[in-house]
Amino acid sequence: MAISKSVKNAMVAGNYIRKMFEEGIALKKIHGDANVYDLSIGNPVMEPPEAFNRELRQIVNHPWPGMHLQMEAAGYTATRTTIAAQLSQDTGLKFGLNDIVMAFGAAGAVNVVFKTLLNPGEEVISFTPNYFEYVHYAENHGGRVKYIASDKNLNPDLAALEAGITTSTRAVVINSPNNPTGHVYTAPTLKGIAEVVARRSAELKHRVYIISDDVYANLYFGQGKCPRMAQHYQHTIIVNSFSKDLSVPGERIGYIAVQAQCEDAGDIVKGLVYASQVLGFINPPAIMQNAIRNLQNASVDISIYRQKRDFLFKSLTEMGYAIVKPQGAFYMFPSSPNPDDEVFVKELKDLLVLTVPGHVFGAPGYFRLSYCTDDRVIEGSLKGFKQAIAKYK
Amino acid sequence: MAISKSVKNAMVAGNYIRKMFEEGIALKKIHGDANVYDLSIGNPVMEPPEAFNRELRQIVNHPWPGMHLQMEAAGYTATRTTIAAQLSQDTGLKFGLNDIVMAFGAAGAVNVVFKTLLNPGEEVISFTPNYFEYVHYAENHGGRVKYIASDKNLNPDLAALEAGITTSTRAVVINSPNNPTGHVYTAPTLKGIAEVVARRSAELKHRVYIISDDVYANLYFGQGKCPRMAQHYQHTIIVNSFSKDLSVPGERIGYIAVQAQCEDAGDIVKGLVYASQVLGFINPPAIMQNAIRNLQNASVDISIYRQKRDFLFKSLTEMGYAIVKPQGAFYMFPSSPNPDDEVFVKELKDLLVLTVPGHVFGAPGYFRLSYCTDDRVIEGSLKGFKQAIAKYK
Repeated sequence: MAISKSVKNAMVAGNYIRKMFEEGIALKKIHGDANVYDLSIGNPVMEPPEAFNRELRQIVNHPWPGMHLQMEAAGYTATRTTIAAQLSQDTGLKFGLNDIVMAFGAAGAVNVVFKTLLNPGEEVISFTPNYFEYVHYAENHGGRVKYIASDKNLNPDLAALEAGITTSTRAVVINSPNNPTGHVYTAPTLKGIAEVVARRSAELKHRVYIISDDVYANLYFGQGKCPRMAQHYQHTIIVNSFSKDLSVPGERIGYIAVQAQCEDAGDIVKGLVYASQVLGFINPPAIMQNAIRNLQNASVDISIYRQKRDFLFKSLTEMGYAIVKPQGAFYMFPSSPNPDDEVFVKELKDLLVLTVPGHVFGAPGYFRLSYCTDDRVIEGSLKGFKQAIAKYK
Repeated sequence: MAISKSVKNAMVAGNYIRKMFEEGIALKKIHGDANVYDLSIGNPVMEPPEAFNRELRQIVNHPWPGMHLQMEAAGYTATRTTIAAQLSQDTGLKFGLNDIVMAFGAAGAVNVVFKTLLNPGEEVISFTPNYFEYVHYAENHGGRVKYIASDKNLNPDLAALEAGITTSTRAVVINSPNNPTGHVYTAPTLKGIAEVVARRSAELKHRVYIISDDVYANLYFGQGKCPRMAQHYQHTIIVNSFSKDLSVPGERIGYIAVQAQCEDAGDIVKGLVYASQVLGFINPPAIMQNAIRNLQNASVDISIYRQKRDFLFKSLTEMGYAIVKPQGAFYMFPSSPNPDDEVFVKELKDLLVLTVPGHVFGAPGYFRLSYCTDDRVIEGSLKGFKQAIAKYK
């Protein structure tokens, strides 16, 4: 066999999202783009805010020597400084330039964190429904993911968490606002997680870290700022990306942040920098590090996402779909009217509505919608959703 | 321990180049930038060709919808098409768009290739002196590197290669023009490697691939085009990057190419695409994929590097340094006058000349110079080189 068994197996198990993507292209060829309603891809169709284009123009039209060369291993000092300032403001915590390591979007960042933390066989706990790639990211570095199911309201089962943490547990990874559900943990929920992890770490005399994948933190529909894990647990490693807020997922720019109070923060930051090098990321694109430097407050217009959520949530619940109302990101995770989510998603596809079955996210019996798409697509999908649920009434 | 044992060990063993880099900064603070002659970093100081800046301006000043979003998993079709055409022209072989997978510079590309090919414990053969990160890249993916020493002329020892290939060998990696030596394999040398690998593959009924790290192929001082491995062995996986030719190593843009005639080419390409996703690279920066699309023939001015080589080679050999004259890249690999290269490099450092000991590249008794730097630095270093060798005469 030409390729490694692990890659072969993972490919056969399938990158489900990509497969849907390709089936979507095929369907669009047959039925015409306008007649296929693709809610399967978590890749925003919105354009970046004008401030981003302005920054890029400023950089490219006024180039300076060395601007495309490699820089400090953790990323440009100026960029890390503005990120630290904004993160301090967003969280009320104190981050400095040396607490920030630039990263290749969240996917790169999580790989770098796992590489840094995981010894062979060690595990990361993740609450389902969760982002389906965590398990492969952990396997890349010899680790594994232990799933713990969330409750019906999409909140973590703290008793199961308490029982699940062992001396093999290096970290608990959370993602709030969440992909695939759009669910946001409240401050008390975050505090609950923190208390369990702190208690078990003390009991086991073994530090368990929390990796907080905060990529959707700016896409929050609640009052004020999005509640953040780092506010409740000092041993939190924050992963973030500009892909979603600035709608630039093709440019791969993000960062990792570790508070100075985090146990062994200095070693971890050094490890993150080394892992970025050795995994071949080296540094995120120089031009993007410069482009986002002054954009810490820029973001796509959240109110547009909120309107899409409100419209779709109202429409679907009126049809009879059961959904925990999402408070952030751009996903919804309805219960599947058919207990077999694969079957229901197929039925929707036959009605030219593309979604992703919940089993991909470790949560069979549900399906995911991404509404980071044109209103035309969202509106057009409703007919199919209505038809699909009719036979289950 | 907060960080994984493998990362801790690798960090302790040291990223020697980075360490030198930091010591260089410290020395420059003490003695002043102008008085420290840094030949330790393989990161060109030259600016990109004007064509690159022009392309970037064109893109940024005339933006189009979706230009910062994710694209086809292998990279933009238009970009892969122009790369395939240029590669076909450079090699005389036939490459099509589907033979190209975009990658994050060579470091990312090699990681992706190793992830795709290596099962746990399998090995890659590399001729020393070699790029010191290959061994860590292989370890990232559960594999390992088997070193085979080159002869005094820096050519591979084919008998040792023949004996070294076993059923555990997945690939032989070559890098010509070479880091750290600047040495270029002639067509007959490449043919010799190909014959051994083909013969052993047939004997063992086990396909051994050749990974040809061609990142310096455009920095070739010989007549005509640089000889390429793929011209002699159809089961070659080419790794390339625009970092060196366009002097944009901070932007992380490169590619992997697999000829259709390569055994299991289709599976390998699919594996490369999957590995890029799962390792978190996703896709190289969209803006750079667009920027390099029309720059397949652009390159920094090679004659500048040739002049630097000629000047430095002549100066050092006249002082008594023994060097195999490099035919490409921007490195030179003199014999260390002191059999302990670490000691000699330290002596040079005390004279404010920064180089890298050969043991870092698996070749003790030598040291590496990078001359991709200002003439002022090269000229300024000569005094130190002369003083350093004096005591060994």
